[in-house]
Amino acid sequence: MNYFSSNFKLGILGGGQLGKMLLYNTRKFDIHTSVLEPSADAPCKIACNEFHIGDLMDYETVVNFGKDVDVLTFEIENVNVDALETLEKRGIKVFPSSRNLRVIQNKATQKLFYRDHEIPTSAFSRFAYLSEIEDAIENGGLEFPFVWKAAQFGYDGNGVKVVKHLSDLEGLPNGECIAEELVNFKNELAVIVARNEVGEVKTYPVVEMEFHAEANQVEYVICPARIDDEIAEKAQNVALKVSKAFNHVGLLAVEMFQTHDGDVLVNEVAPRPHNSGHQTIEASYTSQFEQHLRAILNLPLGRTDSKVGGIMVNLVGAEGHHGNVVYQNIETIMNMDGVTPHIYGKKNTRPFRKMGHVTIVNEDLNKARRIAAEVKKAIKVISE
Amino acid sequence: MNYFSSNFKLGILGGGQLGKMLLYNTRKFDIHTSVLEPSADAPCKIACNEFHIGDLMDYETVVNFGKDVDVLTFEIENVNVDALETLEKRGIKVFPSSRNLRVIQNKATQKLFYRDHEIPTSAFSRFAYLSEIEDAIENGGLEFPFVWKAAQFGYDGNGVKVVKHLSDLEGLPNGECIAEELVNFKNELAVIVARNEVGEVKTYPVVEMEFHAEANQVEYVICPARIDDEIAEKAQNVALKVSKAFNHVGLLAVEMFQTHDGDVLVNEVAPRPHNSGHQTIEASYTSQFEQHLRAILNLPLGRTDSKVGGIMVNLVGAEGHHGNVVYQNIETIMNMDGVTPHIYGKKNTRPFRKMGHVTIVNEDLNKARRIAAEVKKAIKVISE
Repeated sequence: MNYFSSNFKLGILGGGQLGKMLLYNTRKFDIHTSVLEPSADAPCKIACNEFHIGDLMDYETVVNFGKDVDVLTFEIENVNVDALETLEKRGIKVFPSSRNLRVIQNKATQKLFYRDHEIPTSAFSRFAYLSEIEDAIENGGLEFPFVWKAAQFGYDGNGVKVVKHLSDLEGLPNGECIAEELVNFKNELAVIVARNEVGEVKTYPVVEMEFHAEANQVEYVICPARIDDEIAEKAQNVALKVSKAFNHVGLLAVEMFQTHDGDVLVNEVAPRPHNSGHQTIEASYTSQFEQHLRAILNLPLGRTDSKVGGIMVNLVGAEGHHGNVVYQNIETIMNMDGVTPHIYGKKNTRPFRKMGHVTIVNEDLNKARRIAAEVKKAIKVISE
Repeated sequence: MNYFSSNFKLGILGGGQLGKMLLYNTRKFDIHTSVLEPSADAPCKIACNEFHIGDLMDYETVVNFGKDVDVLTFEIENVNVDALETLEKRGIKVFPSSRNLRVIQNKATQKLFYRDHEIPTSAFSRFAYLSEIEDAIENGGLEFPFVWKAAQFGYDGNGVKVVKHLSDLEGLPNGECIAEELVNFKNELAVIVARNEVGEVKTYPVVEMEFHAEANQVEYVICPARIDDEIAEKAQNVALKVSKAFNHVGLLAVEMFQTHDGDVLVNEVAPRPHNSGHQTIEASYTSQFEQHLRAILNLPLGRTDSKVGGIMVNLVGAEGHHGNVVYQNIETIMNMDGVTPHIYGKKNTRPFRKMGHVTIVNEDLNKARRIAAEVKKAIKVISE
């Protein structure tokens, strides 16, 4: 299969910002792309060769879309996995595989997978219904505090809640869920592992998610993480162990906690380009998007080391603002050293919606971190 | 004017590879774009918001296209300049300006412009017809060797010929032309100058075009140029003097000769992103395409220094090959350190047609140069 021929077609499920950034690279390599996406004005509506509107959770829609492509990938995990399995049986290359997606889609299954593969992760219990959690608390089988997670269809912080009192459970959906030990972590880390079909594996440097102390929100992704070499090596090894267990093709972003005791625990994974790798566009020899493409097309992987230090700041909708988006003070931040805004192209903002991100690169990571703080202070995603 | 609003529209004349690479950045900033281009399957046919097919040299076509945009730019100089002037009078911002384009479009006018502004350039004579050159030779007013250049519509080496004998003039078009002193140069250098509407100016590092000794073709663009600091400073100053004379908005790529005596002479300019700046995508803090966009939208300019050393190799069609293009050994070069191919997406190759380029980046420029030689040896642009 010649990926650089006009007969080859790459299918992408989902037409959001990750798909959009992937398309920069399919354009660079002149690879023919077809996107399936439910929203008619999604970020990917241009730059792909074909744009199809359809429901990613509908079996027939996904099979009909996927049967005409040579390789199928996705930018979001909420897709019909039975359809992927059908396509695999028909000989379509689907990366990541339906087998891996089934494990990852369900957080309970994902946790059991780590336990089965002796991958360090926090303690947890699985429940078929929310009401079973209440029973467990009453029986003394579960103690506060813990983290409730919906087993399925969580995204960007939805479907996750820290539970300190019985009342915190009120209003949560009554479906399959897990109760996880609340890890009092020192750092949240991530490593992106790339693997192609012939089994070549490369890891990106460990990144650190710096949290806002009060809001408990990720404020900055920092590459490389400001941690001891020993912890970095441990995180790399844990990520490689997870990669080996999944035997994936494409990227695997492994999110981890560093505990105060120096342990590294796997939190969760994403089998695709990830928010923790956006700074690779400007900071790394090979961006995560180009790397995902190299991996799923079974091309040689590119260098994963960094040219310079990189920091990523998410641009999320400000509270109290709904409607036509305005990026206030964007010219101010573009006047700062090494600052690149990425505007995803969503027309409407709403509180906490991911509308873009900003990368700050500098040969001196501490200087980048100071500029990142200025960026964060200046830019506001508001409505007209 | 808010460039990040959905009401703003950027027009681009020409839909080739330069337009395509510019579109990566309009996508990144979510700027609405409209492209006018004669060929229905040009590289820009996707990734712009609107794609119009039309003749760039036709007055009415360009005026009709341009009247609906807020800012108009172009990726090729062969456009109808009267139409640009009309649009300027109607209040459309046209960058580069019609005034500058008139000077640049005609190589005789361009040379006179340098002479008028005391910018160092090689000696030349202007002729209304080719036949006048023959008269000048007979009268002793012109001596061999010299460089014949058509005054208008040369592109990528067309319209330029070294003339050593009277017979070299045979078959050349009988239009306006110049005869230039043949400069026995030590190096060919280039500096890209960016300037925005409020007059902020930044220069990229001096790059060097390394020539193939026998074929007399540019083989590599090398950033930074391997020259003395003194020459680099002189080249920067000459480029800034040219920039000041043109008072341009957008990029101005200034091509220069370094003579064996250490003089720097201006050869010609291009008022747009340029082949000598492609390595900025991977090597610089701000790519030339993002910078052009920042300049014409009157945004603050980005850093122009380099993260790492960069080398660019053009991918041109091999001799003897016409038709459906194949990039032979592309996987071989993608396996080399820091190598990124850019495939422009032209369906058909022909000898010497620019089909793409390859960038090689490395913290060690000499290592990048060695890898670039391997790239050049391996990759072949052939037909099926």
